[in-house]
Amino acid sequence: MSLLYKADPVRGERWQALFAEQAPDIEWRAWPELGESADIRYLAAWQVPENIATLLPNLEVLFALSAGVDQLDLARLPEDLPVVRLLDPGITQGMCEYACWAVLSLHRDMLHYRQQQVERRWQAHRLVPAPRRRIGVMGLGEQAKAILASLRGFGFALSGWARSEQHIDGVDCYAGAGQLPEFLAQCDILLCVLPLTAETQGILDRELFDQLPRGAALINIGRGGHLVEQDLLDALASGQLSAAVLDVLQEEPAATEHSFWNHPQILLTPHIAAMTQPDSAFSVLLENIRRHQRGEPMLGLIDRTRGY
Amino acid sequence: MSLLYKADPVRGERWQALFAEQAPDIEWRAWPELGESADIRYLAAWQVPENIATLLPNLEVLFALSAGVDQLDLARLPEDLPVVRLLDPGITQGMCEYACWAVLSLHRDMLHYRQQQVERRWQAHRLVPAPRRRIGVMGLGEQAKAILASLRGFGFALSGWARSEQHIDGVDCYAGAGQLPEFLAQCDILLCVLPLTAETQGILDRELFDQLPRGAALINIGRGGHLVEQDLLDALASGQLSAAVLDVLQEEPAATEHSFWNHPQILLTPHIAAMTQPDSAFSVLLENIRRHQRGEPMLGLIDRTRGY
Repeated sequence: MSLLYKADPVRGERWQALFAEQAPDIEWRAWPELGESADIRYLAAWQVPENIATLLPNLEVLFALSAGVDQLDLARLPEDLPVVRLLDPGITQGMCEYACWAVLSLHRDMLHYRQQQVERRWQAHRLVPAPRRRIGVMGLGEQAKAILASLRGFGFALSGWARSEQHIDGVDCYAGAGQLPEFLAQCDILLCVLPLTAETQGILDRELFDQLPRGAALINIGRGGHLVEQDLLDALASGQLSAAVLDVLQEEPAATEHSFWNHPQILLTPHIAAMTQPDSAFSVLLENIRRHQRGEPMLGLIDRTRGY
Repeated sequence: MSLLYKADPVRGERWQALFAEQAPDIEWRAWPELGESADIRYLAAWQVPENIATLLPNLEVLFALSAGVDQLDLARLPEDLPVVRLLDPGITQGMCEYACWAVLSLHRDMLHYRQQQVERRWQAHRLVPAPRRRIGVMGLGEQAKAILASLRGFGFALSGWARSEQHIDGVDCYAGAGQLPEFLAQCDILLCVLPLTAETQGILDRELFDQLPRGAALINIGRGGHLVEQDLLDALASGQLSAAVLDVLQEEPAATEHSFWNHPQILLTPHIAAMTQPDSAFSVLLENIRRHQRGEPMLGLIDRTRGY
């Protein structure tokens, strides 16, 4: 009985060690070394291979190694294959670390200082006190709430926006398309942690940027599909936006010729904000495998008709 | 009655606006435009000019625009000139922001990702969970305690070291030269926020680096005099240290040819961690001017015989 792993090879080594140590009955295989493919009952993956039905004839469960499954084309998968998402507590922790780091980077002008280091220039810039800096978070799910709680400790002014009404202590909350302009008009730093749906696709566009205060900054830790990349370039060129920290792109990995790589006002990281951490995720994944083996319901099972 | 300002010109504009608005009776002058120097009763400065006695014959108080006054050669100043340091609450806030940003930058491998952006390389690296990352803070004064409290929210393992014994909730505290090796042996990220004295001068040297775990990282937000710069270069070259975030240098501003500017493992900022913030410092400075005018004792008066 084997599990096939198809995701980042660096973290794969840690997953393999955890399985060897704590679940030696489950044989570990790492893509593309399939071995005898008929043995493979479980696929743990970020993206699934083509022709999964013929490639893995005895596959019983697909474990997505992510909290969302929007990167999977569910329609292409065998109809009766259970798909399970990963409810990893390490993801929330990673999101908080990255969000605080990105907000502090923008708050303290660190893209500017990064460029000054390249230019060998020693010059201090004026510092804005945290209470006079308003951070606006788009999306108010569990991850967003944890991020807002982390940011609160630094004394920032905080706003939040979501589709439906929310109440969060110490956060000015706005809801729906009607209150979006009022929310945007105050945000010095806008942080997107929305889920990617038909309604949020391309939401970070010129029209939205134009509603922010001039010189505002952007952080995207949602999905690449939220951002219209050319509109960001235009907003940076015009001065409407001053800087952006991006962890996700329309196409990943970014092409070598992508114009974001060498943009001095863009800080780009390779989709690492909320990396699944084998150490915190392993017990969640193993628990689901054991539940499946015992015939019990798995946690995080995707409703294939709703898509989440 | 005039005040002469001699420090960063960018922040000078904000100081000037605050004086104009809230203390119009005190005439503002900015170095090097002295005007009639006999009018100048107060000097607010980071560094003092040469020949201060002849240049400013009627000077009554020197207000250092910093929490420490180690950058001043007190012996060179007129003997009876009161020197007052700045007890600015904004400095502690700035230190916390910078320290958390620097720790998160190292914890999340951001110097590595900075270099990858330059090289147009999209690759994720393994993430170490915060509880398995130990941050060691050297110096346990008020600023260090505030920093430790901020870091605690992220779940890091925390240690602290100071000359004398301390007890801080959630922090493993070590004291004196005798316990320094035990403290260092566990620190994945070492953060220096010590005062600069004869004993701490050059404390961040090869001997200290060799006692850290291999691949540890360094943050210096103390003073440039704490670090032996060549020893850092050697430790980075040998792999004993993996990275450093530095806000202070032996000589500031750094010379154009300084080898830290283009070092991929060094993140250098121009002494901005704990920038005095005119908005939070103004009321503290003005209160001292008013106290002096009323003949009352000023807050933060330096004992010229002790030097602090």
